[in-house]
Amino acid sequence: MTAGPRRIRLDLAYDGTDFAGWQSQPGARTVQGVVEEAIRRIQGGAPARLRGAGRTDAGVHARGQVADAEVSASVDDERLLRALRSMLPRDVRPLGVRTEAPSFHARHDAVSKTYRYVLDRSPHGDPFLARYALHHPHEMDLDAVADSLRRLPGRRDWSGFAGAACPREDRVRRLTEASCRTVAPHLLEFTFSADGFLNHMVRNIVGTLLEIARGRFRPGRIDEILASRDRTLAGPTAEARGLCLEKVEYDVVIR
Amino acid sequence: MTAGPRRIRLDLAYDGTDFAGWQSQPGARTVQGVVEEAIRRIQGGAPARLRGAGRTDAGVHARGQVADAEVSASVDDERLLRALRSMLPRDVRPLGVRTEAPSFHARHDAVSKTYRYVLDRSPHGDPFLARYALHHPHEMDLDAVADSLRRLPGRRDWSGFAGAACPREDRVRRLTEASCRTVAPHLLEFTFSADGFLNHMVRNIVGTLLEIARGRFRPGRIDEILASRDRTLAGPTAEARGLCLEKVEYDVVIR
Repeated sequence: MTAGPRRIRLDLAYDGTDFAGWQSQPGARTVQGVVEEAIRRIQGGAPARLRGAGRTDAGVHARGQVADAEVSASVDDERLLRALRSMLPRDVRPLGVRTEAPSFHARHDAVSKTYRYVLDRSPHGDPFLARYALHHPHEMDLDAVADSLRRLPGRRDWSGFAGAACPREDRVRRLTEASCRTVAPHLLEFTFSADGFLNHMVRNIVGTLLEIARGRFRPGRIDEILASRDRTLAGPTAEARGLCLEKVEYDVVIR
Repeated sequence: MTAGPRRIRLDLAYDGTDFAGWQSQPGARTVQGVVEEAIRRIQGGAPARLRGAGRTDAGVHARGQVADAEVSASVDDERLLRALRSMLPRDVRPLGVRTEAPSFHARHDAVSKTYRYVLDRSPHGDPFLARYALHHPHEMDLDAVADSLRRLPGRRDWSGFAGAACPREDRVRRLTEASCRTVAPHLLEFTFSADGFLNHMVRNIVGTLLEIARGRFRPGRIDEILASRDRTLAGPTAEARGLCLEKVEYDVVIR
């Protein structure tokens, strides 16, 4: 038996608070860096390159990040999962490992991603949500927010909500869901699904919605930002702590 | 108008992870210390002495801690609450301030306290619960746990579950609730209410229940520990991170 290296899909959840984001950077603690190092040690020092479906920013969390990597044949999926569980720190946890076709690419093959943004509307600021929600103890016009959210879905150029670091390539994405609901007396949750997101896109949309909720912009501002593609018309980038990559979806492949 | 100092009740919630417990200690960051310092600054440098209903250990959380303090007359309740909100750090939050009778004592007047202990039973360990639950991915005999819990309530000497640091005074307390329920697929929550708790009592009870759940002790062990008052028969002290002081109750006083 001379099985060669194989490609795995790795599902991850992490608390992004103490990470400088997903992507490896010299001298910084990143999710990619920590997981690559664990795989390297598990397979006896052979380096692994992890590709994440979403390159989350510093402080952004994930409940359903998906990554892929080529790993050596020496450990099977179950053993690799158990080894990752024991080696990874408490703030990044492996949810599953599965062998995929050699061509699998966590980012390119993703057909949909869903992000959630949580607001803590309590007057005092729940200390247990300090890492996971934006504390926003202000009056909110939720009708204006609902009106604004209805204007978002569709296949569009999202330049007006793109971060400055966003590459000047194709900025057309199809947003399939933009909604908000009150999940607990003081907890408001925004949900956004799309076939892809630009850098800072969700946080810039939320920052704009918060301006609308406070009456500083009208809901029609959304249309103006979309039509003009002018980032300066949008609100400020909402804090990273409230954002979480909830899930990444793939087409079912019959093999 | 020469209104003198008055006594206030202060309700607090805190994430205990980054505190060396409730009680002031030189050189350590404690909840009492942080709040006393904030009150001191608010009232122009006059020191305040805070008395907490429960002196929670390092790493133990609170959603409903109650404390009292004598404060100067210079700030009213509403202004004091707002000042505390803006001055206290994100991991300790003031929930309310109310002027009480001069005789009010948060600990002595409490008629009931409720603690909760959370187990994360997921195989991977939810990273968002890393600070707030004990990760316990083991098989559990929940019938044996239920059997054990039924043996606990009552007015008893709890020396068998007392921590080593517990003073050798009266150790009789009335436990009114000892229960457990599954609140989410991988989340198990224990609830304990009593007119008072000894040092480490809840964590030692939980540690014992976990031994019973794994089949290392029989449920009857609870009766043996209670009858013998022998701490060496109980299980190890469960980690602080899973414990939270949920609420403190007082008799309604008609004034």
